[in-house]
Amino acid sequence: MKDFGISPLDDLIDQFARLPGIGKKTAQRLALFILKSDSEYAHDLARAIVRLKEETTLCKRCFNIAEGELCEICSDPSRDAHKICVVEDIVDVLAIEETNSYHGLYHVLGGVISPLAGISEDQLHIKELVRRVQEENIEEVIIALNPSTEGEATIIHITRLLKDLNVRITRLASGVPMGSHLEYLDMATIGRAIQSRQEIK
Amino acid sequence: MKDFGISPLDDLIDQFARLPGIGKKTAQRLALFILKSDSEYAHDLARAIVRLKEETTLCKRCFNIAEGELCEICSDPSRDAHKICVVEDIVDVLAIEETNSYHGLYHVLGGVISPLAGISEDQLHIKELVRRVQEENIEEVIIALNPSTEGEATIIHITRLLKDLNVRITRLASGVPMGSHLEYLDMATIGRAIQSRQEIK
Repeated sequence: MKDFGISPLDDLIDQFARLPGIGKKTAQRLALFILKSDSEYAHDLARAIVRLKEETTLCKRCFNIAEGELCEICSDPSRDAHKICVVEDIVDVLAIEETNSYHGLYHVLGGVISPLAGISEDQLHIKELVRRVQEENIEEVIIALNPSTEGEATIIHITRLLKDLNVRITRLASGVPMGSHLEYLDMATIGRAIQSRQEIK
Repeated sequence: MKDFGISPLDDLIDQFARLPGIGKKTAQRLALFILKSDSEYAHDLARAIVRLKEETTLCKRCFNIAEGELCEICSDPSRDAHKICVVEDIVDVLAIEETNSYHGLYHVLGGVISPLAGISEDQLHIKELVRRVQEENIEEVIIALNPSTEGEATIIHITRLLKDLNVRITRLASGVPMGSHLEYLDMATIGRAIQSRQEIK
């Protein structure tokens, strides 16, 4: 695709195109929107980007987003500090918080082990998890990774590291999602739901 | 969708969500990417956004993007200044330039007349086009709007305004696109191609 030959425009298109899921065509559309929008919006957006980097950081304990040393959840004394829910990403913390069915702490891995994507265990916060289990008097580790081959491999790896540490290790139930129709579900989901079928009492 | 409760993050998500075609979920993904990316990228992106607004403007004559008063095309003396190609948007200038088959000037309308989207003729640069035709010794106006109902209505409107000004008014040929298959084309395109069929000499 040809450039406009106007360096401030081509430069912004290149910068937008570095964002995940934004191709060159979308980047072009976004840059032209900025060009035509009022100057106030452009400055607000630029300021918000810089402010996010300057005013937030990752929690030293669980790697969730934080405004200080610890995130809101880690610094909340009303949370159950004997449970850790292990998730891939910060968005997963939000997804679980929305359910209101968990009141323990979190641990954000920052991804899953994926040799294909070049992500090894050293790039994830796995050793920090092991250290927390050793030092923080944790009773249960709930592994809530996304169901995928890489997620499964990561669960196996973590389980192996934690199994001698006298902690209960659990994972999210796999099965038929609420509101779904069996006829539209994939075989793997139905197969897993049959294997993990539950007694009706 | 719940907010993170971290104001720098929620604020950036809101700002991203104002971009066209970016929903709240995508905005969240982009903001978290910024959060995790190195500080240099965030600053580069913010700077590129502000720089686009500060260093570029719209050409006073044709409303294409420009770094000075006039755009590159309007200030190029080798272009044929007796022809104006009327387009909806700046991207269309680039699309036509890429073909290397047009060497006249442009006029960017900034959209098409669309009562449904609340865009009236006053919001477009139509009167500036009429003035250029009156003052600039123009021989031909080539209307290159996107083929749509609104585009057609805009073509009719412009044609009516220009018809007494002693200028040749043309439009892009409608028909079967190169490399297409008749069986996959819509009826309107094939119908138009039959109506506008060309003599084989």
